[in-house]
Parts: sequence; structure tokens; C-alpha cells
Amino acid sequence: MGLSVWKFGGTSVGSVERIKLIARRIARERKAGRELVIVVSAMGDTTDDLLELARQVTTNPKPRELDFLLSTGELVSSALLAMALNDIGCRAISLSGYQAGILTDPIYSRARILKIDTKRLREELDRGNVVVVAGFQGMNEGMDVTTLGRGGSDTTAVALAAALNAEECRIYTDVDGVYTADPSVVLEARKLDRIGYEEMLELASYGAKVLHPRAVEIGWWFKIPIVVASSFNDNAGTLIDGGESMEVRRKATAVAHDLNVAKITIVGVPDRPGIAASIFEPLADAGISVDCIVQNASIDGITDLTFTVSRENVGEVMKIIQPIAKEIGAAKCVSDTHVGKVSLIGAGMLNTPGYAAKMFKALAREGINIELISTSEIRITCILREDKVPDAVRVFHREFELASA
Amino acid sequence: MGLSVWKFGGTSVGSVERIKLIARRIARERKAGRELVIVVSAMGDTTDDLLELARQVTTNPKPRELDFLLSTGELVSSALLAMALNDIGCRAISLSGYQAGILTDPIYSRARILKIDTKRLREELDRGNVVVVAGFQGMNEGMDVTTLGRGGSDTTAVALAAALNAEECRIYTDVDGVYTADPSVVLEARKLDRIGYEEMLELASYGAKVLHPRAVEIGWWFKIPIVVASSFNDNAGTLIDGGESMEVRRKATAVAHDLNVAKITIVGVPDRPGIAASIFEPLADAGISVDCIVQNASIDGITDLTFTVSRENVGEVMKIIQPIAKEIGAAKCVSDTHVGKVSLIGAGMLNTPGYAAKMFKALAREGINIELISTSEIRITCILREDKVPDAVRVFHREFELASA
Repeated sequence: MGLSVWKFGGTSVGSVERIKLIARRIARERKAGRELVIVVSAMGDTTDDLLELARQVTTNPKPRELDFLLSTGELVSSALLAMALNDIGCRAISLSGYQAGILTDPIYSRARILKIDTKRLREELDRGNVVVVAGFQGMNEGMDVTTLGRGGSDTTAVALAAALNAEECRIYTDVDGVYTADPSVVLEARKLDRIGYEEMLELASYGAKVLHPRAVEIGWWFKIPIVVASSFNDNAGTLIDGGESMEVRRKATAVAHDLNVAKITIVGVPDRPGIAASIFEPLADAGISVDCIVQNASIDGITDLTFTVSRENVGEVMKIIQPIAKEIGAAKCVSDTHVGKVSLIGAGMLNTPGYAAKMFKALAREGINIELISTSEIRITCILREDKVPDAVRVFHREFELASA
Repeated sequence: MGLSVWKFGGTSVGSVERIKLIARRIARERKAGRELVIVVSAMGDTTDDLLELARQVTTNPKPRELDFLLSTGELVSSALLAMALNDIGCRAISLSGYQAGILTDPIYSRARILKIDTKRLREELDRGNVVVVAGFQGMNEGMDVTTLGRGGSDTTAVALAAALNAEECRIYTDVDGVYTADPSVVLEARKLDRIGYEEMLELASYGAKVLHPRAVEIGWWFKIPIVVASSFNDNAGTLIDGGESMEVRRKATAVAHDLNVAKITIVGVPDRPGIAASIFEPLADAGISVDCIVQNASIDGITDLTFTVSRENVGEVMKIIQPIAKEIGAAKCVSDTHVGKVSLIGAGMLNTPGYAAKMFKALAREGINIELISTSEIRITCILREDKVPDAVRVFHREFELASA
């Protein structure tokens, strides 16, 4: 057996009992001969508690100090897991992000990994240790602690798997794997045994919370098989890999939905070259992700420009685009935070005619209005009123027979 | 104004409000032009909480992992203090032990500082930052986190003051300074304005909790003036420095007492060379501090050997010395955990005849029995029944007129 990198999220290390539970699982696999690197998140609500402490001190903490503070949560859980492993006779050592050689760019709170110096990791593995790495963190060139932002520990795990040339990366979480839809919305949702990187990337980007898109991207780029499985049972989980053969066989794979969506419309935009850039460049500079950009067909050289962002960004977006809208002579800017997003994802779906039409017809039959449509090679997304989202998810799941493999 | 190193203990950073309070004090001094390095302990009970977490995971944690875990407490408080300072317009940066360049030996849980590389500290000071350093921790040559053990943050502060050639080191705590006796035992105890290193070292070693002896030793060696003062008021505190002139003037300075004392007696030891070494070497190897060693005069080549240790060490000590006692032909080993220690401390006291006699007479007058006597150049210590300790402290304080300066 080769090297495997396993990641356990906050719920999986949420108590001493759970830490002992996963320690036994790790020790079993180690005993069977596998080399293991374990990445852990902070215990349960630790990160939120630390954020609350910081908020009590100041509403505007320096990002460097906030990262320094938040990084301690993962240090605690990694030390405790290493103790638990040693306690049951499984040699283990905990490493902070910098001890694990994780070098990042200098952007606090959402640092990107630049490279991983695996010297210490390799040494500890060669000594027979299970290496427990504090997730979500690294160090920049100035020797300051950085955190990786949302999905940080997933990203740490897959990046370590890539740097160490691991056989696989296993993401242990509180669900059994990747489902055809959110099981709390669709009762008959089915766990997928296997899904391709590209489909998983769209699923993760369009609302499936089980794995962060950054982690999927790294896995795809470095061709690391990723398994998503439950830390509370031994079920097989979902394998995410190249899966080329599946593209032909399966068209629609899963439905993702996301309620954290706001729709922004700039009304009466003069339809001339460079306008879109003048609006979206400042948003990109402010680090705001925009998706589902739609520009209506121009009538008399005047058009409406609509796009969606996460709800927490609405205030900042409006502040940035209002002066620009004025400058380019648009009529007004309107925001709407009561929308949601439903996406049907499937490799090769758009190459097969009729999928989009079938989706729209199904929604029409249920009396659900579509406000925006956006598509990629393997995804069709509809923006709807937020209260219609669960119905739309169920309609798609049924219409495309996702419950049957 | 030059550079000053200030240390705040766990009570002083025990809540967000207190952190904000000391931030204002620091900002005031910084504004007045002083360069400042601030050393902080973990907030309130954090270290105990982390120890309890570790204890729930295992009763026998690897020392390396325990240090890794415990070091996070000081990281949290230093980040929060740096945030609070920046929030009120006082530029500040937090540094972990390793970022502050604190290199220690590899002995976990009671590491000694080997050297401090002040490059980063100097850079941050030159940028106009108040530098907040996480106390109690450093890093060994293998890049692993070590903790300094008891009195660790005091030690960090005085060592940084020495390495940075600071004008002074100020230890802010929850009392006003160093007293002639514990004010909770002696109502008329008086705060000392000034005390010499040597006297302070004896006071700290013989029960005064206000400052750790390790910190005093470093201050003495590098001639760093240390001020102990309250973090909750602006009273002047106590200056600890060379104070040579005082030796002549003042004989008895203060009374220290300690209830964490156990007495061990090896009965019927053959009085021949090498016996003491055969007993005390194994204890030293086990890292157990022994004081007040007394060997009674030999009668017919047989003697009793008595010494004191901290109460938590009794079990281990008995386990170590019982086989040795048997081997050297001693009759038995006896332990007694109901004793306490009272010490009168004063520079040059032993050079002045009559001090010891006056002490013993005063105790006799009160009907207090002395079980052991031990002396140094500037200290006379009596071991008594523990319930007699408070009385003895009061008797000495009165007898030597310590309430009057």
C-alpha cells in the first residue's frame, strides 16, 4: 500500500470522543501498512469562537493578526489527534502549516499555496510516523502565518497529496459521499459511486458543500483520485477522478442548488464595446466572484446587464458599480436577494441536444418561472425565486431519473 | 526613552475588556516615545483548559505534542492584544516564540532558552511596531515548538530584555509589587520599593509567587532592572536590581513561605563517603528539585538523611530512593507531607551574628517547633508543621520590624 492523505473536517474532530474514534480508524490502516498524512480542521465551532473573540476586540482586525489567531484552532486539533494516536500505540507527530513546508502567497485570509517543501514530511514518514498536519494554514515568505480561506483544509489535503505524489486523497466528512442532490431536499437522492473532476468542480461551485472547488481543481490538475466518505461509518464513499468513460454513458449526473445568491441588474446600459469590462474589472479587483452574467439582446443600442454574486457581497458590489453605472449613462442599478440557483450537471450534457429544453419544460409544467439562465459545457443553471428552489431541485431529480444509477 | 519589555500574566489578559485596558496603557507609553516589546501569557484558564483536553485524550501525552498544544494559548492572547493595539491606532504585530527568534534546548515542557536571534524583533521595532510576543515558548533546532515550563512567560520577558539590551523589564501582574510577606497572611506587610537580585532570587525560590526565580536569575546575570507592578493601577511597583548599597543598610528584608513542601527522611544511613551522591544523583537525573538537605551528626557511623521536595514529587521520589536505601543498608524511608517552609531573607544577614538565634527564640516563645533548619548566605529557612506556618510568618515579620521601611 502506498501513501494516502486523509482529511477530517471540524465535525469529525468535534470532541475528544470523535478524535479517539478517528484515531482508531487511522491506526488500523497504518497497521495494515499504509503511509498516512492526516489533515485536520479546527474542532467544531472553534474557528467561530475565535472570530467572535476577535470581533469583541475590534470590528476591523488586521488580516495578519486574524490569520495568526485563527491558525491556532487547527494546531489544537492536530496536537490532540497526534496524542490520541500515540496513546493507542500508533506513532504520530503533529505539524503546523509552516512545519509541513506549506509556502503561500502573502494574501492573508485567502492565501494560495505556492509550493510545498516536503522534506520534513518525508522525514517523518520515513521514521514511521503518521503525520498530522494542521489544515487551512501556511506561511508566507516573510515567515508569517497565513490562512487559506474557505475550503482551506480540503485544499491543504489535496495539495499535500499532490506534493507527496500520494495514491489518493480521502476527504472524511459528516455525509456518506457526493449525492445526486441534497438528500435533505430530495428524499430519493442517490449517493454517486464515482464522478469526474469536471462535474465535481461544477457541483462544488454551484452549491454542493461536500468538497470545496479549490480542492477539486488541484486534484484535477495533478490527477489525484479524491474519495469523499463518512468519518462515522465504513461505507465506500464517492470516488472523484478522471472518469473519462463516464462522459459517454451518463448525461445528467446531479443537481446542485445554492440559496446564497443575489441578483444585480444594471438597467439601460448603452451597448458599446468595453462596457462589460468597465463594470467587472473593478469587481474582480475587489476580490468579488461574479457568476451567471447575462446581457439581454440590445434594443436601440440599450441593454440590461444582470449577474449574480453571493449575498454577503451585495453591499460592496452596489457601492462599486453605482458610480460606474452613472458614468456610463445607465438608468439605474437594482439588487434582489430573494433568488436562488439550481444547476443540472452532467459531463457531455450540452453536446446532447434537448437537455435544456427538457429542463425548461419541466419547470414550466410546475409553474416555476426562470429569471436567468447560464450554461457551461457540462452545466445548465437557472436562477429562480428562492422559495421555488426546493421544488425545482425535486423536479429535475425526477425528470432526469437521477435516483436510478 | 529607550526600549522596555513588559510582561502581562494570565489574569491581566484574562478577558477582552482587560486586553483593551492594557492596550490603552501600552499605547500611551508608545505615544510618549518608548519602544516596547510586550510578552503575554495565555488568557486566564486557557492553559488549564488545554491540559484538561489533553488529559481527556490520554493520560500520557507525548511531551512534544503537549508543548505544541499548550503553545497555542499564548498565540491567541498575543494576536488579540496586537488587534486591540492596532484598533486604537497603535501599530503592533504579534510574534510566536519562533518568529521572535527564541531558540531553546530540545527538552519539552521545561525548555531552556539557548539564544535569541533578534533580527525580526529589531526589524519590527524599527518599523515603529509594538511587538507582542507569545510568552512561555520557543523553538528547538529541529523547528519544533517547546514550552519553557513554570515561570515561562516571566523568563521570556527578561530574556528578551537581555537580548535586546532593553533599559528595563516590567512584569505586570495582579499585585502591586514585592511585599515583605504575603499580605493575605500578614496584614501589615509592606510593599518594597526596591530589592536586590539575590534577595529576590531567594524570595522567589522560597515561596513568593510574584516572579519566577528563573526570570530573576537571567535579570541578575545580564543586569536587567526588573520592575514588578500591578496591571490594574499606576502604583510604582517594586524595582529589582543590583542594589549593592542596600546590603549594608538593611539586614532582614522579607519573609517567604511555602506550603508545597514534603519532608523525606532516610533513617539509619551508614555514614560513609559517596552515600549522599548515590541518593541525590538519581533524583537529579529524574529532574526533581531537592532543597533543605540535612544530615544529622553521625552516632556510631549511622546517620539520618532528611530533605524536602515539592509535594507532587513525593511518589516518584519514594519509588526512586527506596531500592537505593535498601541497597546501602538504611533502615527505612519516611515521607511527611504536612510540613511547610518559612524563610527570612535579607542581604548580608548571615554576616551579622544573632539573626538565626533571634528567629529560633521567637518561634520558641510562640511554642512553635522547628523540624529542620537550612541556610544560605542571605536566607534562614525553618521547616515547621504546616498549620504553624502562618503564625511563624507573622512572628518573623513582627520580630524583625519588616513593616517599617
